[in-house]
Amino acid sequence: MPTLDPSARPLQGVTVLDLSRVLAGPFCTMVLAQLGARVIKVERPGAGDDSRAFGPFKNGKSLYFSSINYDKETIALDLKQPADRAIFEDLLTISDVVVENFRPGTMEKLGYGWDTLHAKYPSLVYGAASGFGDSGPYSRRAAYDMVVQGMGGIMSMTGQPDSPPTRVGVSIGDLAAGLYLAIGLVAAIQKRSRGGGATKVDIAMLDCQLPLLESALAAFAALGEIAQPNGSRHPEIAPFQAYRTADAYVVIAAGNDHLFALMAQALGRPDMLENPNYKTNTLRHSNVDALEDDLEKTLRKRPTQDWLDALNAAGVPCGPVNNVSRLFQDPQVAARDMLVSIDDPVIGKLTVAGNPFKMSGVAEPSTRRAPPEVDGDRAAILALIGR
Amino acid sequence: MPTLDPSARPLQGVTVLDLSRVLAGPFCTMVLAQLGARVIKVERPGAGDDSRAFGPFKNGKSLYFSSINYDKETIALDLKQPADRAIFEDLLTISDVVVENFRPGTMEKLGYGWDTLHAKYPSLVYGAASGFGDSGPYSRRAAYDMVVQGMGGIMSMTGQPDSPPTRVGVSIGDLAAGLYLAIGLVAAIQKRSRGGGATKVDIAMLDCQLPLLESALAAFAALGEIAQPNGSRHPEIAPFQAYRTADAYVVIAAGNDHLFALMAQALGRPDMLENPNYKTNTLRHSNVDALEDDLEKTLRKRPTQDWLDALNAAGVPCGPVNNVSRLFQDPQVAARDMLVSIDDPVIGKLTVAGNPFKMSGVAEPSTRRAPPEVDGDRAAILALIGR
Repeated sequence: MPTLDPSARPLQGVTVLDLSRVLAGPFCTMVLAQLGARVIKVERPGAGDDSRAFGPFKNGKSLYFSSINYDKETIALDLKQPADRAIFEDLLTISDVVVENFRPGTMEKLGYGWDTLHAKYPSLVYGAASGFGDSGPYSRRAAYDMVVQGMGGIMSMTGQPDSPPTRVGVSIGDLAAGLYLAIGLVAAIQKRSRGGGATKVDIAMLDCQLPLLESALAAFAALGEIAQPNGSRHPEIAPFQAYRTADAYVVIAAGNDHLFALMAQALGRPDMLENPNYKTNTLRHSNVDALEDDLEKTLRKRPTQDWLDALNAAGVPCGPVNNVSRLFQDPQVAARDMLVSIDDPVIGKLTVAGNPFKMSGVAEPSTRRAPPEVDGDRAAILALIGR
Repeated sequence: MPTLDPSARPLQGVTVLDLSRVLAGPFCTMVLAQLGARVIKVERPGAGDDSRAFGPFKNGKSLYFSSINYDKETIALDLKQPADRAIFEDLLTISDVVVENFRPGTMEKLGYGWDTLHAKYPSLVYGAASGFGDSGPYSRRAAYDMVVQGMGGIMSMTGQPDSPPTRVGVSIGDLAAGLYLAIGLVAAIQKRSRGGGATKVDIAMLDCQLPLLESALAAFAALGEIAQPNGSRHPEIAPFQAYRTADAYVVIAAGNDHLFALMAQALGRPDMLENPNYKTNTLRHSNVDALEDDLEKTLRKRPTQDWLDALNAAGVPCGPVNNVSRLFQDPQVAARDMLVSIDDPVIGKLTVAGNPFKMSGVAEPSTRRAPPEVDGDRAAILALIGR
């Protein structure tokens, strides 16, 4: 790989050949693109990535697909046809990384399993994301996000007490796997550059749920405690939840006695500091229902913005419960360039999440490529392999 | 950094000096440790990491702290005392990476801001996680997970319809920032090894929430649609949710027409394939309430396990809604080594999440270090700097 200038994005010069579809894999390769990698997406001819058919749509183009496939190039190849296989194999020779999220066994059936690829392309790093990974009794099962959210425990901890099962409102099964795969692949690239050779990184969506459960695993094993859903409340800390105001809700996170004292003053409730039930976090947590009633008695008298002003002035961690519309108006989001617009020939103005990697000396790219149509970069990609 | 053997973990030989506390930073450095880095935790003398005081506890030791601080070494240093500052500065000379999650400005007050460190230790990579990052109007505000979950939009999409605000049941604000910081730091290590020099990686918890919102940002910008909480249902696909059975719930994720047909057969409901309201995903999604009633009419007749057996035999993605107790009994979790026990001198048997990075040729470590007591590795750490 080429040496880098201090102003370069860290994966500049890294080429990723991306067979992945829908979410976990494309989310991973979007992260790699944000870090500067060149991502070449390989799609099946015709329909392409399944998620091109997923709503919502604007002018017939999928916003689901578009949100995680900008800044990528794409070529359509049928990996069962000899001519297209030859192109694919030439692309493997110029790639540093191949990424896929098929069911385990699919790449082997195509003749592109890890053992085969590693023998023929010894410096190629291989990344796979699947529901259950390439070992274990469920390995060959398909899984979607909902299956993993249910099986992995996070749904059992999310929701209101006694409500029906509640999913995390985003596809955290896929997204967590995509992030773990990105970490593993960058680490593997780094290992290769230190002489350790190429590696296959095998990431299972189910596996990635377990580290997200924080102390719930240790608490069950050591104490027999089974974590339960608890609305907006933190399992151990109080006050640390969303409270009703005159017009909406306010989140207050007074994580220690000092912040609790600042909060009580800011809300004009110094009497709370004299209440023996609120002396320590342990006591406040034991009396969390009474504390909620007591706080809401005050908070319901004024609108959320008034309370945010008072609490922020006092240095108490707090915030609104923003929906997407309010998030678009947040000045911090704007200041951090976390909403980015791309001119798309079909959609018009496409708005996507910005790049969360803020790196010293590395400028944000001034333009971004629109999400491509199927086979949209064929000529440029073929030119890379002299065709 | 030393060259690596193919069997080495990818960050072997990388030393991380870790000033971080509580969750986002320690979760990041736990990931770096899983990848083979040596993590040296620097804690304040006496109480150490704040999270040592967070429940749940076993024999007085925090399971919260223990779940994300095994496989690390620790030394207690007061960074306001000259003698301890000299030790810290010697440790900086032997470290590849420094990680902190103070409020922006704190490191500068200590005399260890990025500009100062970069001038004195030009090859040191610097990672920071904070609520809002080191720029923008909220930069100096403290944030806890709940504040970011509320502000960043994920809470507005999580919960039952019309329920009070519902947090994701785990601290996804911290955890996502920890994963993004890990990606950024491994990328920065890789950049340094390619001659690009050392970088500061500035990660904001709020920033990291936006990429998790999938197409909700694009849908608001292009269509004015505001994402809403929807229980366990997927916003675009049906059937794709948890359904009631005779004894509990079953998740069915029939993401396309083929899977819907397999599902109808497996449930003994071939009549569903004749129903004009169920012909396409778009129709099924428009009739999602009727579809739920119709499916539950059948599913309530038998227990979850019967349905899982039938659906798995047919190849339909499905699963139970496991709580932590059931997760411990899952054979796939066991087969993937995703629950790991550590002998802890205080806790006894400590159970934590295993390592989700499964890498070809790299064996799982056969033992893991117990989470240390404050200053527990002082002598070994001082020996690294010849003291």
